[in-house]
Parts: sequence; C-alpha cells; structure tokens
Amino acid sequence: MDPKDSRFSTQISHLALDIGGTLIKLVYFSPNGDNCEDGSIVVGNNGCSVVQGRLCFAKFETRKIDDCLDFIRLNILQHSGVQHARDKFSVKATGGGAFKFADLFKEKLGIVFDKEDEMHSLVCGVNFLLKTVPREAFTYLDGQKEFVQIDHNDLYPYLLVNIGSGVSMIKVDGDGKYERISGTSLGGGTFLGLGKLLTKCKSFDELLELSHQGNNRVIDMLVGDIYGGTDYSKIGLSSTAIASSFGKAISDGKELEDYQPEDVARSLLRMISNNIGQIAYLNALRFGLKRIFFGGFFIRGLEYTMDTISVAVHFWSRGEAKAMFLRHEGFLGALGAFTSYKDQSHSTDLKPHHHTVERAVVKCSDDDSFRHIPVTANVNDGEAIECSINLV
Amino acid sequence: MDPKDSRFSTQISHLALDIGGTLIKLVYFSPNGDNCEDGSIVVGNNGCSVVQGRLCFAKFETRKIDDCLDFIRLNILQHSGVQHARDKFSVKATGGGAFKFADLFKEKLGIVFDKEDEMHSLVCGVNFLLKTVPREAFTYLDGQKEFVQIDHNDLYPYLLVNIGSGVSMIKVDGDGKYERISGTSLGGGTFLGLGKLLTKCKSFDELLELSHQGNNRVIDMLVGDIYGGTDYSKIGLSSTAIASSFGKAISDGKELEDYQPEDVARSLLRMISNNIGQIAYLNALRFGLKRIFFGGFFIRGLEYTMDTISVAVHFWSRGEAKAMFLRHEGFLGALGAFTSYKDQSHSTDLKPHHHTVERAVVKCSDDDSFRHIPVTANVNDGEAIECSINLV
Repeated sequence: MDPKDSRFSTQISHLALDIGGTLIKLVYFSPNGDNCEDGSIVVGNNGCSVVQGRLCFAKFETRKIDDCLDFIRLNILQHSGVQHARDKFSVKATGGGAFKFADLFKEKLGIVFDKEDEMHSLVCGVNFLLKTVPREAFTYLDGQKEFVQIDHNDLYPYLLVNIGSGVSMIKVDGDGKYERISGTSLGGGTFLGLGKLLTKCKSFDELLELSHQGNNRVIDMLVGDIYGGTDYSKIGLSSTAIASSFGKAISDGKELEDYQPEDVARSLLRMISNNIGQIAYLNALRFGLKRIFFGGFFIRGLEYTMDTISVAVHFWSRGEAKAMFLRHEGFLGALGAFTSYKDQSHSTDLKPHHHTVERAVVKCSDDDSFRHIPVTANVNDGEAIECSINLV
Repeated sequence: MDPKDSRFSTQISHLALDIGGTLIKLVYFSPNGDNCEDGSIVVGNNGCSVVQGRLCFAKFETRKIDDCLDFIRLNILQHSGVQHARDKFSVKATGGGAFKFADLFKEKLGIVFDKEDEMHSLVCGVNFLLKTVPREAFTYLDGQKEFVQIDHNDLYPYLLVNIGSGVSMIKVDGDGKYERISGTSLGGGTFLGLGKLLTKCKSFDELLELSHQGNNRVIDMLVGDIYGGTDYSKIGLSSTAIASSFGKAISDGKELEDYQPEDVARSLLRMISNNIGQIAYLNALRFGLKRIFFGGFFIRGLEYTMDTISVAVHFWSRGEAKAMFLRHEGFLGALGAFTSYKDQSHSTDLKPHHHTVERAVVKCSDDDSFRHIPVTANVNDGEAIECSINLV
C-alpha cells in the first residue's frame, strides 16, 4: 500500500467531523477497492482525476473521544500508511467541539481543524442531501413511511429543526441563505440526561429501546385523569390527551423505584418529542413555512419519535404543515462541512451517483474499507453514499 | 349563632371550588364580624341587603381531598351551625374535579356542584381581578416588582397563560370572548412529578424551597460547555446560555445520588419556566398580543420563576412582549366561578372595596373567621379581598 497514492491522501484529507456536546459525527470519503483492481481512479477528458468511492459515516460519544481518535488513526491514517499526520493534513470540523478539542486532535493525530460554522454546515448538509441524494426525505404518519420527491425549484423556504443535545431551528431561504430563528434547550441531551438519572440506562440506544416497551399513561396525567374519564370536548381535548407530563407522579404515592423504567423512558420521549414538534410548528407558522425537516441524532429513525413529532405538527397546524425526516439525519453538520472541502492541493467536486445509492446500501457493510473498525465504533453501514470526487 | 342568619347562608352558598389535577382552590365569602357588632349587614335604599365582608382563599392538594372536605365542614358548614347541607346548597365548581368528585361532595357534605366551564371561569376570574382589584397585576424583571396600572378601556386583547398541572393558553378579547389557542403538557405537574422522582421531595413548597438554593449550571449543558468556554456569538448565544437542559448528566459519569437535589430542582424549574415563557411568547406573536398574564399555582410569587419567565418572554420577543403576573394568580378559576354566582334566593353583585384592599391584607391573618382552620389547610392569608355583596 503506497501512502503517496492519491486515493489515500484523498481519503485522509476528505474527512469532516461534527463534534457536538453528546456525539461526534464523522463523514469520510473511501475510494473503491484497496488494490486498484476495480480501477476507481479515472482520468477525465479535462485532465482531472476522478476518484470513485463512497461517503462513509461513523459516530462516537463525545465523552469517549479517545475511541474516535483511535478510529481515525486505525481506519483513516494507518489504513493509508500514515502513523501521524504531523500537521500535514487539515480536516473540516464543525460543532462546538471544533473549538474545544482542536488542540487534542493536533497533539494526538497531527490533524489541524479547518473550522466551519455550525449552522452554515447544517444548512449545506441538508441542501446537499435534498438536491443530490434520491429517496432522502420522507414523511412518517400512522406507521407509514413515505418518500417525498423534492422539486429542486420549489425547495425553499423550509424550516430545519436540528435536534442535537439542544435544538436549533433554522429558516432556510436558499444556498447559504439562512437564519437561526429559534431553538429549545429541551433536546436529545435532556432526553438522555434525565433518562440516565431516572432509569440508570447507560446509553441513548438502551434508553430508546426501553422507551419502545413502555406505556406513557402510567405516569403522564391525561385529560381523563382530571375529568374523571371524560373528554374536555368543548376545547377539543380528548380524555387520552396528555394534560401534564409526569403529572401522575404527584399523587401516586410512589417513588422512582416503584415505576417501570420503560414507562418513565416512554413519557420522557413523548414529552420531548411533542414539545419540539410544537415549538417547530409555532416557528414555521411565524414565517409561513409549510415544510419542516427534522434532523439530528435524537430521532435515529425511531418510529415512535417520528410519529410523535408528526402528530404534534399535524395536530397543532391542523394539517397545514408537514414534518419530514431525512435518512442521513444524524450527519447533516458533518456532511455540510465535508461539502465545503477545499485545500491547496485539490478541490472537490462531489458527485453522488444517484443510481448506485441503493447498491451501496447493500455493498457497504462487508466492504474491505471497514475491516479495521474497532468494536467501539458505531458505523451507519446501511447509509453510505456512493459518489465520485474530482481532483484538479 | 343562628344558622338562619342570612350572613351564614350567604357564606355557605358563596363558595366556589376549582378542582384541578394537583390542587383544589377555594374562594368563599366571609361576612365581617361573628356577632353582628360591626353592623356588616346594611339594607340599601333599594331594599337590598348589603353584606360586607371578605373573599377568602384556601388551597389543598387534590390527593388530600379529605382535608378539603374537613375544611368546608368545619369552617364553612359547621361554622354556620350546619352539620350536613343535605342537598340544600349548591356551590360553584370548576376544573376537571368538578366532574370527577361531584358524587363525593354530595355524599360527604350534601353539597351539589353547579358546574362552570374551566376556561370560562379562568377568563372571568382574570377580568374580575384586572378590572376591580387595584395593584393586582405586576411585572417582574431584574429583581424589581412593579405594579401595572391597567387601563380598563385598553385591556383587550391579552394572552392568559394558566399554569396548573398542565398549561392552557387563552386569547382573551373581552368579557366572555376568548379562545384556548394553545397549551403544553409541561406544567406544574411536570415540575412536581419529575421533581418528586428526582429529589424525593414530598411537596411543591419543599421542591421550590430546594430549587431556591440550587445552581442549574451543575447539570445543564451550557453553550460554553460545548464550545470550550466561548460564546457562539455569530447567532447571539452567550457561553452561559443553556444549550441542553440536564445535558451534563450525559457525560458526568454520575448517578442521581451524586447530584445535589437542589441543583436538580433548580434545573427543572428553569427548564419548565423557560419553556412556558417561550411557547407563550410564540403564541402571543401569532396574534399580535403585547401583554401576557401568567396565572396558576405554579408561580406562587416565586421570584426565580417569575424572573425566568420574564427573561424568556423578553429574550424571545426582543422586548416587544411583556410578562405580567397576578397577586391572586392561584385562584383565577375559583374566582371566576365565584363571580358567576346566582341562585334562586339571591343574586350577587360583588363590589370589591378598592380603598380597603391594603387594609384587608393586614387584617385578614388574625381574623376570627380563620380560627377553625385545621393545620393541613393552606390559606393565603395575605391575599383576602375586602368586598360587599348585595342580596336581592
């Protein structure tokens, strides 16, 4: 393996990180084949080298940042024959951790961060996905996932709701035209933070799995609990509507240990999802935005979460606004930072191969480029995007 | 003591209850003097009897409804020489419990509920207070409480945010002209419910007292925690802004027992107050409402809560909208139900004595009419309203 091979320097320098308060998200380009057998480098008519490969995705908990450093060392630097980049490579980085952990990455890996603004990266990431990756956006209502065909000429304006540790709400009017109009501190960090304290779960996935089995009515106070089982029909509140999240814990005479952790997790998920859906709708209403895209790692494709958010938007907007989700929801910022790649040696002209995305989904998981992945890494192996980049 | 004395039947039948999911609120009329010495009954020129007295207030936890029944039996029925009303008296009742507990009150006390709609009562209560009780409304910002002079001709429209177990948001356009436009399930029940599970506090007051001593930064993830101590100035987020409520609990490696309960209580209070302030503002914005009145027992005159709500409204509205609070915040529904009093024997023409309200505040606590109050009752003895009623 020759580390001077342009494919490898391409791989190393085409790496973007989004370091949030809870998770680190990685997007990197992996050229096809490890031994040039499939001829993934093609020299085009204009003299450019075209490298075919895939955008790959991985995530780590921010508190386990050493795992992320190991992953980059083993799978990107060492895989390319480099032990330490020795200040040679700058990679794109966004999120608060691009500031907080810049010194650590330089010291441990010799990687210098080329910082990209967080909101800008989010918007670039979503626009890239919506414009170039087919079957990216979908609605979820009544248990039905439905892909949405996006008309590129009728994309703007839309509301982007990114649910990370906290939540940012961004009105997007075009490429690079956006404004952060709102947000809420009740986000994924609240779900996991409160969830850990209440259920002793260790991870987000464990907490989500728990919530899947729970029943929120055990601990939420419903309209019917206050009205003796009847609706408050005059104002359109059914007896099963939640009047007060966690309200039953007031009067049950129970302590935390007396509740099933799955019921607690379910109420928590419902409370936070519903609240985000409501605040998103109210902000969409302010600006007459009909489409709301929800992203960020909180959702993680979980049906109950998407259903709660969709129902909240549908309920409050009386069907006027629509909640939409994204297949690559967790990597918006990292993708946006990646698409801004540009350094002295080459510029990137990222061209996703529309027709091969579905194939990549199948191919990716047993691909050679993942052979070094340590067990602690969490790679979204079903979501790689097949593409090519131009080296000029 | 002659129970046939009109003052006593007046007292009994001028009782209104607002039975919510967490608290029962009572408003009742207490005529001046126990032995007619101060001549509190005056026969007017038109032949009406004018009874002078005070509106008194008391509250009980809904789960301790027996205390409420005892209070009414001892301080209103028995105090008037009646052991059991034997279906003779109907009293005004609102809130979900007016449905849920109607049979209980009939069976135990012989009291029949004359049900009033919950939202209607809230609005009537606020309009009554704003129009007739001086120094009722005030703002709270930067530690300063400032009474607001309400111009009766410029009162409407306004947004009423009633924070009970859950939260109702009502646009009020005039007497009896209102619409419930929004709400949230994150209310006082959430604060107390989650608070009990997290801190083992037994009561709302205990939890509020705890929160008073805590520091939310111990457990909330601030912008500076993500950005390595710096602001995210581009979008106007200071390093001390809360990025994620309870977000630090993700990565601290601590369990619930490792946190101080006062810090947990503080974060919880901040999270819920801020969220209500934000949703209230977004709804006020929809309808161009400049004034937002916050009521309900959640606030309880607590400075930190009022400050958080005021700051949220001020921050999100960029100073355009104003949060206002009410001295009788906890009794809006009960007061509204009370003002709708009308039965076969007499109608009520409630006339608060403006100039004596301040005097009543001083007088009330050692007033004779409270001598039978059992220790479990929680009487807002600083907030009685001196007034007279006409018996026709």
